[in-house]
Amino acid sequence: MSHRPIITLTTDFGINDHFVGAMKGVILGIAPEAEIIDITHAVQAFDVLDGALAISQAYSYFPNGTVHVVVVDPGVGSERRPILAASDGYYFVAPDNGVLSLVYAREERVHVRHITADHYFRQPVSQTFHARDVFAPVAAYLAKLVDSHKFGEEVDDYVKFAAPKPKTAGENRMRGVVLKVDRFGNLITNITPADIPALFAEKPSFKIVIGNREITQIRSAYAEGAQGEVFGILGSMGYLEIAANRGAAAQITGAGKGSEVSVLLGEAAAAGKGA
Amino acid sequence: MSHRPIITLTTDFGINDHFVGAMKGVILGIAPEAEIIDITHAVQAFDVLDGALAISQAYSYFPNGTVHVVVVDPGVGSERRPILAASDGYYFVAPDNGVLSLVYAREERVHVRHITADHYFRQPVSQTFHARDVFAPVAAYLAKLVDSHKFGEEVDDYVKFAAPKPKTAGENRMRGVVLKVDRFGNLITNITPADIPALFAEKPSFKIVIGNREITQIRSAYAEGAQGEVFGILGSMGYLEIAANRGAAAQITGAGKGSEVSVLLGEAAAAGKGA
Amino acid sequence: MSHRPIITLTTDFGINDHFVGAMKGVILGIAPEAEIIDITHAVQAFDVLDGALAISQAYSYFPNGTVHVVVVDPGVGSERRPILAASDGYYFVAPDNGVLSLVYAREERVHVRHITADHYFRQPVSQTFHARDVFAPVAAYLAKLVDSHKFGEEVDDYVKFAAPKPKTAGENRMRGVVLKVDRFGNLITNITPADIPALFAEKPSFKIVIGNREITQIRSAYAEGAQGEVFGILGSMGYLEIAANRGAAAQITGAGKGSEVSVLLGEAAAAGKGA
Repeated sequence: MSHRPIITLTTDFGINDHFVGAMKGVILGIAPEAEIIDITHAVQAFDVLDGALAISQAYSYFPNGTVHVVVVDPGVGSERRPILAASDGYYFVAPDNGVLSLVYAREERVHVRHITADHYFRQPVSQTFHARDVFAPVAAYLAKLVDSHKFGEEVDDYVKFAAPKPKTAGENRMRGVVLKVDRFGNLITNITPADIPALFAEKPSFKIVIGNREITQIRSAYAEGAQGEVFGILGSMGYLEIAANRGAAAQITGAGKGSEVSVLLGEAAAAGKGA
Repeated sequence: MSHRPIITLTTDFGINDHFVGAMKGVILGIAPEAEIIDITHAVQAFDVLDGALAISQAYSYFPNGTVHVVVVDPGVGSERRPILAASDGYYFVAPDNGVLSLVYAREERVHVRHITADHYFRQPVSQTFHARDVFAPVAAYLAKLVDSHKFGEEVDDYVKFAAPKPKTAGENRMRGVVLKVDRFGNLITNITPADIPALFAEKPSFKIVIGNREITQIRSAYAEGAQGEVFGILGSMGYLEIAANRGAAAQITGAGKGSEVSVLLGEAAAAGKGA
Repeated sequence: MSHRPIITLTTDFGINDHFVGAMKGVILGIAPEAEIIDITHAVQAFDVLDGALAISQAYSYFPNGTVHVVVVDPGVGSERRPILAASDGYYFVAPDNGVLSLVYAREERVHVRHITADHYFRQPVSQTFHARDVFAPVAAYLAKLVDSHKFGEEVDDYVKFAAPKPKTAGENRMRGVVLKVDRFGNLITNITPADIPALFAEKPSFKIVIGNREITQIRSAYAEGAQGEVFGILGSMGYLEIAANRGAAAQITGAGKGSEVSVLLGEAAAAGKGA
């Protein structure tokens, strides 16, 4: 079969304007055989962590060789660098503002290059739309198998932040945060089974406090809860989610992105001091 | 020309999260030559009838051999079965909760299989994201021309519901319901020409009562009405729609999804008793 | 490489209904090798100027030979003609209501045909969904390299409107209008550097009045402003934009689509009479 490269797009551009269409046109002008897949364009505007979450949750499902373009770029036109990151399986093209941080955290080996080879750019380069003039064409040339080292020198001082981690807050007590609310109103926390193995044990003694609710059930499927019941569940993203069967946990609990979530185990749970 | 299979997606996942992107990645990992087309991801959350309507309105426009994936799946992770339905022209991959009911109603012959061949699944299978781990890979293998009988045994007790039908309510009087409101505010009712042929006759004597309005015009194009006028029209979905020229009938009438619509013919219309 | 035609879609259909899916199905039934790209489906309902802006900002980034389908069509089913416009590089399929006006303004040579060859249509043609039954199949046959002259006779009385231009309003004073607000809350005005070259000069003496704000800074990148500062910038669309660094200028200024924007130069600016 002929080479049919895949390029994915993850941005905060929304889909109401022409921005994404222009990017796709530029890509197809350079690499007409490319298959362009939208991951999402609904990253919260200017929210680099939200973009980092989105790409980290989707990139690894794509075939080896896929080029992932990630543009959440409040610093467009400033000194922030455009970068090309290559892992063992994937290429990432993005601004150097940390939006790839959660990719760096999951990949064993990543080589990051500062993209400086401006003969691959669309000219003239707009100061306000590098997605169209820098990131899209670089991704298209990568899809055409141009060697990554041709785009610029390797750097090791690229921007990388740690995702917010849950913190222990006294004995048998841990505090986390809601990373995002999904389409169904599920509250995705930053707590993983590795953080609190006991929470996902056979018959845990625990309490989760979030918003105006205290939660005492862990379920393994959304449909296991009674309708409207709020419970904890290990979601497909690998995090503890607060969910409700056919209901929006965000609405029921009054919690949202950034809300605090506390998990109390054993005696701390029995003592009942929520926050 | 080489085989280029088409896979369509109809879900209630929205497009703000990574869910759809992950599904597409899984599909392309198995069937890199597949063309993936979004029908819609805006089915009302958990609303199986809304999903049934969406796929029933779009599937038949695609070429023979298309694989349609339909995921509105409040029972994910429970005992509900994943199924594969094959009609003369199409494959459908979906949870067995009735979301294919309107397809069954339109297709002469459908063979439904309970998908049990878990070596086609992505492992480990998440209890909360079968779209990624079950439906997407099965669709991809179908697109690669794996025989449908390899996915599981045929069943005949699959879930099937009837769409709500309009009811006669006394002589020359029929009551229907608004199935959905489209992007333009048109109210799509469940009334077809077969239900009330007289309504679409040359010069019908009728009255339609919906929301706060009584409607006495049937038009054959949106632009035929005066601006803002509310009228009935046989829409492209095959149902009676309540519409307004360059206006949103839903807003004007105060009616919406689930609202009652009454059609009065002849003397009943003249007598003027709306509801 | 084999012929892989590109068809783009720009509509006011939204993506919550089955409309776009049905169009894509029809296209792939005729031209299975076509690559279909969404530019946007979020043109304001019935807003022909908004559609004209969208396609004019995206079409030229696509490779030569691309077929652009543009459907903002309040007159569907009426006497308005379906047209096929061919420029040196592109085909456009649209209703003849002016939605291609900004394309006509940018292209040197355009030949416009009234599409009358109804054997290329999907039969029966719905009076309410020409996108599915007329525009989609015509685009698909164009993508299959059917000669454009086969679709109908050339016409020269096609509908064409001028985009609203800024007006001089006294000495050193110009009044424009906000054409649209983008995803980030940037206010895209209809003022270009050609209209007021002095505004984009090295050290302009000026004042821009919009909504409740007076603006005295021109920046060349969004990130140059202080956080929340409102400033003018020459945007990627070629127009003066009113923007804010990591903020929504629309919200800050209280201005929106259709709002007036005044630019005062030199003494007029110093005199400080805003409106």
